[in-house]
Amino acid sequence: MEFSALLTSAGINIGVCILFLTLYSILRKQPHNYGVYFGRRRAEERFQKQDDYFSFERLLPTAGWIVKAYWCTEEEIRRVAGLDSVVFLRLFIFSIRIFSITSLICILGVLPVNYHGQEMSHKNIPADSLNVFTIANVKEGSRMLWVHCVALYVITLSTCILLYHVRKPVHNALVADEFVSKFFLVHSDNITADPRVFMSQEYNYISRKRLAHITASSPNPGHFSVLVRSIPKSDNELLDDTIRNFFVNYHGSSYLSHQMIYRKGKLQKFVDNAEKAYRKFVRVKLSVFDRNGRSMSRCGLCGVRASSFQLYRNKFIEAKKSDLSNPEVVEAQKECPGAIVFFKTRYAAIVASRILQSSNPMLWVTKLAPEPRDLYWSNLWIPYRQIWLRKIATLAASVVFMFVFIIPVAFVQSMMQLEQLQKMFPSLKGMIKKSFCARVITGYLPSVVLLLSLYTVPPLMMLFSSIEGSISRSGRKRSACCKILFFTIWNVFFVNVLSGSVLNQLNVFTRPKDMPSMLAELVPKQATFFITYVLTSGWASLCSEILQVYNLVYNFFSKFICCCHQDPEYVYSFPYHTEVPKVLLFNLLGFTFSIMAPLILPFLLVYFCLGYLVYRNQILNVYYPKYEMGGKLWPIMHNTTVFSLVLTQIIALGVFTIKHSPVATGFTILLLVGTVLFNEYCRHRFARIFDAYSAQDLIELDREDEQSGRMQEIHEHLLDAYSQSSPIDGSTSFANAQVPNEMIMEDPAQEASESSQELCDTVQEVSESIQEHGVEDKSHSV
Amino acid sequence: MEFSALLTSAGINIGVCILFLTLYSILRKQPHNYGVYFGRRRAEERFQKQDDYFSFERLLPTAGWIVKAYWCTEEEIRRVAGLDSVVFLRLFIFSIRIFSITSLICILGVLPVNYHGQEMSHKNIPADSLNVFTIANVKEGSRMLWVHCVALYVITLSTCILLYHVRKPVHNALVADEFVSKFFLVHSDNITADPRVFMSQEYNYISRKRLAHITASSPNPGHFSVLVRSIPKSDNELLDDTIRNFFVNYHGSSYLSHQMIYRKGKLQKFVDNAEKAYRKFVRVKLSVFDRNGRSMSRCGLCGVRASSFQLYRNKFIEAKKSDLSNPEVVEAQKECPGAIVFFKTRYAAIVASRILQSSNPMLWVTKLAPEPRDLYWSNLWIPYRQIWLRKIATLAASVVFMFVFIIPVAFVQSMMQLEQLQKMFPSLKGMIKKSFCARVITGYLPSVVLLLSLYTVPPLMMLFSSIEGSISRSGRKRSACCKILFFTIWNVFFVNVLSGSVLNQLNVFTRPKDMPSMLAELVPKQATFFITYVLTSGWASLCSEILQVYNLVYNFFSKFICCCHQDPEYVYSFPYHTEVPKVLLFNLLGFTFSIMAPLILPFLLVYFCLGYLVYRNQILNVYYPKYEMGGKLWPIMHNTTVFSLVLTQIIALGVFTIKHSPVATGFTILLLVGTVLFNEYCRHRFARIFDAYSAQDLIELDREDEQSGRMQEIHEHLLDAYSQSSPIDGSTSFANAQVPNEMIMEDPAQEASESSQELCDTVQEVSESIQEHGVEDKSHSV
Repeated sequence: MEFSALLTSAGINIGVCILFLTLYSILRKQPHNYGVYFGRRRAEERFQKQDDYFSFERLLPTAGWIVKAYWCTEEEIRRVAGLDSVVFLRLFIFSIRIFSITSLICILGVLPVNYHGQEMSHKNIPADSLNVFTIANVKEGSRMLWVHCVALYVITLSTCILLYHVRKPVHNALVADEFVSKFFLVHSDNITADPRVFMSQEYNYISRKRLAHITASSPNPGHFSVLVRSIPKSDNELLDDTIRNFFVNYHGSSYLSHQMIYRKGKLQKFVDNAEKAYRKFVRVKLSVFDRNGRSMSRCGLCGVRASSFQLYRNKFIEAKKSDLSNPEVVEAQKECPGAIVFFKTRYAAIVASRILQSSNPMLWVTKLAPEPRDLYWSNLWIPYRQIWLRKIATLAASVVFMFVFIIPVAFVQSMMQLEQLQKMFPSLKGMIKKSFCARVITGYLPSVVLLLSLYTVPPLMMLFSSIEGSISRSGRKRSACCKILFFTIWNVFFVNVLSGSVLNQLNVFTRPKDMPSMLAELVPKQATFFITYVLTSGWASLCSEILQVYNLVYNFFSKFICCCHQDPEYVYSFPYHTEVPKVLLFNLLGFTFSIMAPLILPFLLVYFCLGYLVYRNQILNVYYPKYEMGGKLWPIMHNTTVFSLVLTQIIALGVFTIKHSPVATGFTILLLVGTVLFNEYCRHRFARIFDAYSAQDLIELDREDEQSGRMQEIHEHLLDAYSQSSPIDGSTSFANAQVPNEMIMEDPAQEASESSQELCDTVQEVSESIQEHGVEDKSHSV
Repeated sequence: MEFSALLTSAGINIGVCILFLTLYSILRKQPHNYGVYFGRRRAEERFQKQDDYFSFERLLPTAGWIVKAYWCTEEEIRRVAGLDSVVFLRLFIFSIRIFSITSLICILGVLPVNYHGQEMSHKNIPADSLNVFTIANVKEGSRMLWVHCVALYVITLSTCILLYHVRKPVHNALVADEFVSKFFLVHSDNITADPRVFMSQEYNYISRKRLAHITASSPNPGHFSVLVRSIPKSDNELLDDTIRNFFVNYHGSSYLSHQMIYRKGKLQKFVDNAEKAYRKFVRVKLSVFDRNGRSMSRCGLCGVRASSFQLYRNKFIEAKKSDLSNPEVVEAQKECPGAIVFFKTRYAAIVASRILQSSNPMLWVTKLAPEPRDLYWSNLWIPYRQIWLRKIATLAASVVFMFVFIIPVAFVQSMMQLEQLQKMFPSLKGMIKKSFCARVITGYLPSVVLLLSLYTVPPLMMLFSSIEGSISRSGRKRSACCKILFFTIWNVFFVNVLSGSVLNQLNVFTRPKDMPSMLAELVPKQATFFITYVLTSGWASLCSEILQVYNLVYNFFSKFICCCHQDPEYVYSFPYHTEVPKVLLFNLLGFTFSIMAPLILPFLLVYFCLGYLVYRNQILNVYYPKYEMGGKLWPIMHNTTVFSLVLTQIIALGVFTIKHSPVATGFTILLLVGTVLFNEYCRHRFARIFDAYSAQDLIELDREDEQSGRMQEIHEHLLDAYSQSSPIDGSTSFANAQVPNEMIMEDPAQEASESSQELCDTVQEVSESIQEHGVEDKSHSV
């Protein structure tokens, strides 16, 4: 591709971007798109709605959203969208920082060296092939290769320093998120006592800032609950009793209660449906009442609350597990995959989850339960014994899919070679001859095809992760994220690089020794493709992200064509599993091409800056965090970044070998060893924090709750925190507790009705006891 | 090599074996060799000695020792030599079983097929090349390859079944070793209640048999103690107080006490030396008293017990840590690498060791302490922060050493090619021409050279493992065992196979895809070498093992030439780190050559049978278990066996591909997948048992001790269990507790003096308080 073709491609994309952003700034002001562009806000401020007046201003494009997104503080984002969003945005900040440094060095230092290398002949710049700007233009044995080597050193060192310092706040944030700030309250005299823990100022800063918010928020029931699976069944004891006996016997001082997990029976499903219908009814009523002054939050006719259905459900279970002679009871016992056991303190729960319970590791398997809203109920039915097999199977399936996907990628690559395309479609010959068409085809179409075929991947990987048997939604998403990341790096980077010239070169993977020199030869050649990839997949996908094209169209059709009202409670949660791999891929591209073909860097920097603003805006307005991953995505990001660095160094090693520069080769090997050691250190220093809570923090939290007398309240909440109904509704009592305080406050209707509900409940309880007998008879007949 | 050369080699080795065994049966009866051949017995039955009368019988070779070794029960061995010996002998039982099956199938099924293959021309059997008996003789596309495939299936299946069933008792033995039998006492009504845990009859059988022994033996102090490292230091608090405050604060209900670890000062070293001198003096006295009726066990003049020195030592430490203004105290604080914290119950200790203590994973690092006799004090000084770096460094050093070692191996291989040898040493030409010499050189010398050069490896790997920073002697030995195992498999198997024809073929490692077919081509060719290797390294090393050549010569010189008496307390512990890799290598050879060159199998079978008897005898008589590894070697054995199976299948895959048998290839791939799945299952089912104790077992043990009132006694013992003097003496009070009861009983002198010691102690305490002031002054001046 020539430089002018690149400019054409860039021009098209800049045009598309400006168009989309303008469109967005107009569309977001239209009231009927409120659900598309302000999903999170609507979900929180449930009963508020903007007034539907018309003004001319609504049709003018403005840039106010950019200002709003930019000036929002990190603390605000954390409160509104959770720690994961902060971590995700930190990745952008890190990328912007590192690629600013890299751009500076590579554009000023490396690019002139590449351009003035004597391997290729020069025309005037616009007509020059892009290859002139790559390292391929530097002569063999050139003395100027030290510039590349120094650039590599600077990039690696600054990446490591930034990673360590970005990692620190993330780590601190993670710890601080729930524990440390309380800890500070109690041990404020200790802060100076231990200089090593608190030497980082950021630690102090971040944790202190969070103090006010966290002490106010309710505790997480997941910290008190342990999920027990693979409970041994006995013939002469009820499963319920087995569990109680075991935990009373071995964890008697801290055991609080437990809740069995049952498969849904027919009648339970019926009650679920009834509950759904009821909820719909209440909503309709509410929206009616809403207009009349929002005085009631529930159906006044029957006086039934949603949580009453939980009572019914428990009644069925009670009725079912009455005696062992009943074959239905025995059947239910067989189907029970486990139980949630509640403990009195956080520390006791963590102890029970970390210690091997039985001398057979396949029995009494304990694990800290996810939060109620995070629990993935349908995977709880999977017997624990299957899980290892499922993991292997999905891993194998993912690998197979990764290799099958090479076919569309190869097709994309063949489109890059116009001659091959002409052979395949002779009728296109005339069109291809035209210069503009040729530019569009070589510069734009291939990456669009690749982008479209990549859209099939996330749903499939999500399916694989579901089959894998993760018990939490966040775990499933994290697993899918890893799979998509591997997939993307393999299929976008490696296959494109290696199948670039000839697809047959794929057998390079069978000769790992030749890999560096092979990569060194091929990577610069593919610079053109990846620059256009950044333009299309990067820039354009940001635009389509902010415009929410699919939702916009769906919203339009459902509102104006089908005239049906969208479920107002439905909001999307942030698709970390697709966005994180995308950003990490661009990171990888940035690192690997930094010294090979520095021309890619400005485009990437624009991508990261635009992305930072767009995602901030989306996180603030569109997506609603349904569950927390607790910043556990950071290790994935860190490891991928280090992998990118190592890959860059390996490619550089190949380049220096090809160009016969033994000194640079030696220094690069040194750098490689240093990078690996840095990663090992980080693993030892930080990795355990991301999957374990420390005794110190937990005990402090427990103590404070006990001293303030909140413990009793927490225990009462615990027992009905995990409701086994449909997952969305499954967090009735605690979900509210998870939403920051001020949001609950904005729902005055609920508060007002709280007192009248008390009255209704007593009436209800009487009617229930009458219904009960009927239900019991029914359940036996079913 | 021809068949006759093989017979020559076998003949020489059988001769050597018979000679050595005869020598052994005579030498063991000589009283002055008692220390060499009955080291364990002498160490236990300390004051007994055989009478030194002469009889003609002493010069006659007998086979009584074989009978004794064979009829000893597993339970007896476990009691006398610990669980590790049982596990090691179980490896032999497993090997004998599996190679009996393999021999039967391969000699009867595979060998005739190989021999009647039509690739090579036949002479009469003795003059036939050994290659005629290998799979290389089977024609391409032969239909008889299904025999090999079926044989492979039978071998794999029986290995998996045997492994699972061998593993079960081992696992049971491990668990039963300390916990389960007690558990059975308490919960004997539960046994039938939980059919899944106790369905294996062996479980019941083994644990019940151990009941009598285990309930009588004393508890392990390691189960109550946690080693804390990387304690944060503060300027305004004593380290001792920091530790106490932390554990009282967060583990207050179960914290008992703690003991600081200090580097040795000058005065401490002086006391150590005094203690050593005292011990020597006591021993001399004792050996004198011994003859007069063994009435006293210690020096009656000064009335000082060995443990009194511990009091002195503690006094120094007390004196040292008096105040913070003293710069010496501050210095000592800086040097303190950690502490041993004692807990009231086993469960509390395991909880403290498994839970992350601080939100910085590099601070307050806890780990269950090894037993006192197992603790490797000198590695405790290593700062915890260095350990990850040390691990990487030793790993790198081991890998480098592995590759450097290729040089002697290549030399051995060149000796196999007579022509090359003639080129190198032209003067040998005449000798080599002689048929017998040629046979000796090709059949015997190469493996002797390899064997001798292999002797340098274990000390070096042991050194690497020490540098690595393991805090227990058993951990160090296990780490060395793994390193030597990798080393052996790489340098004996792979390098010999692949450098067999041409050393240049080493670059095969850069092309993993070609590996199977390359191996398939080369492995059968190397059958000859490995058969002789089994004969020399296997058989001959067993003979030298039983004869204890080195110790015999050393003993002879020290007794009769230098006239000095050997330290009677010095006995060797079993060298698992050299013997386990050796046996596992023969296992690997057996599997990989089973269908390629079945002629190796009878030799191997003889090796395993002989080895079983020899090692039983050695374990019973020679080696004294200084510390327990708790059967943790079994996972290494299991994984290596599965690796051998997988390697066999990969080679078979290569063979079937080369011989154009697609059906057999397909079935082998299926088998490969099955084997990997089997290993995964075993890992999930058993792996955690080998590095964790279960809450159920620990709590039961704790309860029983509390109910029987023994807990108080245990706590008292705990506080002086870990003595920081020289490691051999470092287990004064608890070491005895570890020796089975009946052995303690055999030392009546100690019992008799127990009461008189009480009196002496009171006298001693008075004199100590006088000395104390003098010592304190001294310690300040030093």
